[in-house]
Amino acid sequence: MDARYINPFVKSICNTFGMMCGLPVTVGKPLLKQDDGPLSDVSSVIGFSGDASGSVVLNFDFEVASKIASTFAGIEIDRNHPDFADALGELANMVAGSAKAQFEGLNISISLPNVIVGPNHNVSASKAAPRLIVPCNTDLGGFMVEVGMVMGKAPRKIAEPETAGAQS
Amino acid sequence: MDARYINPFVKSICNTFGMMCGLPVTVGKPLLKQDDGPLSDVSSVIGFSGDASGSVVLNFDFEVASKIASTFAGIEIDRNHPDFADALGELANMVAGSAKAQFEGLNISISLPNVIVGPNHNVSASKAAPRLIVPCNTDLGGFMVEVGMVMGKAPRKIAEPETAGAQS
Repeated sequence: MDARYINPFVKSICNTFGMMCGLPVTVGKPLLKQDDGPLSDVSSVIGFSGDASGSVVLNFDFEVASKIASTFAGIEIDRNHPDFADALGELANMVAGSAKAQFEGLNISISLPNVIVGPNHNVSASKAAPRLIVPCNTDLGGFMVEVGMVMGKAPRKIAEPETAGAQS
Repeated sequence: MDARYINPFVKSICNTFGMMCGLPVTVGKPLLKQDDGPLSDVSSVIGFSGDASGSVVLNFDFEVASKIASTFAGIEIDRNHPDFADALGELANMVAGSAKAQFEGLNISISLPNVIVGPNHNVSASKAAPRLIVPCNTDLGGFMVEVGMVMGKAPRKIAEPETAGAQS
């Protein structure tokens, strides 16, 4: 991923958590994801595609995820609450949506979020499409945002099944 | 998700695993994901968007994930191999790509895959965008494919931050 593309995501993280949770975010220097870390308890994953392809992953531990989901929703939401995943999926949605709006002239659309819940899972580093990690800190605790983005269609390492008529 | 949209994904699962892994797939009746199950060790997640928005998630246990990644790559690949996640990400990529090609007349593009690795994690059911689960069986073991898809842009439950200029 080209590091120049990270600024819209940084701005969007600050906007989204600031406006939707009333939570100022201190953003650390974005780092290239080198290996399979950091571990996460809750990962909110959303893709985007069109003139640029990529994904945004919000990585939380359980405690911070619950605090942020509660602040976002305005009610107490722990990991067993039926709205826990949807609240964190919506935050990923908004981070991606707000970043997208800053890439003027690019036609980009956003997929549906998926929220993965399980202690100490790992979002694997991809050799095919390297990611940047944005360390974020707030009064409710820290979290990480992973961003991968390539201009144009997502890269294909190998051809898709021909009889299915797939195109990239 | 409208159950009529599932057939292209079923065909695409059979095409992808059949052609790329030489692995015939027996597909069970797709089920509406009702709650937060089944648990998974490896989840390969990819989004798509454009005239329709959604995501595909391949859910494996470690044993089946390793066997399928090895068959796909043509070399022995266990969960510690550097190509493990990329191989499974590429399979999700191909399932989504091959399905997309069957939605004629719709302009859909595919995001970058993310592969989540961790014992017994859960891809949360979403109230905002219900998913179908396709149970799959092969000679190497079973796995599940989760598909969520909505026509048009992904639904927004609440407005995005206005000052970021986000649009859906």
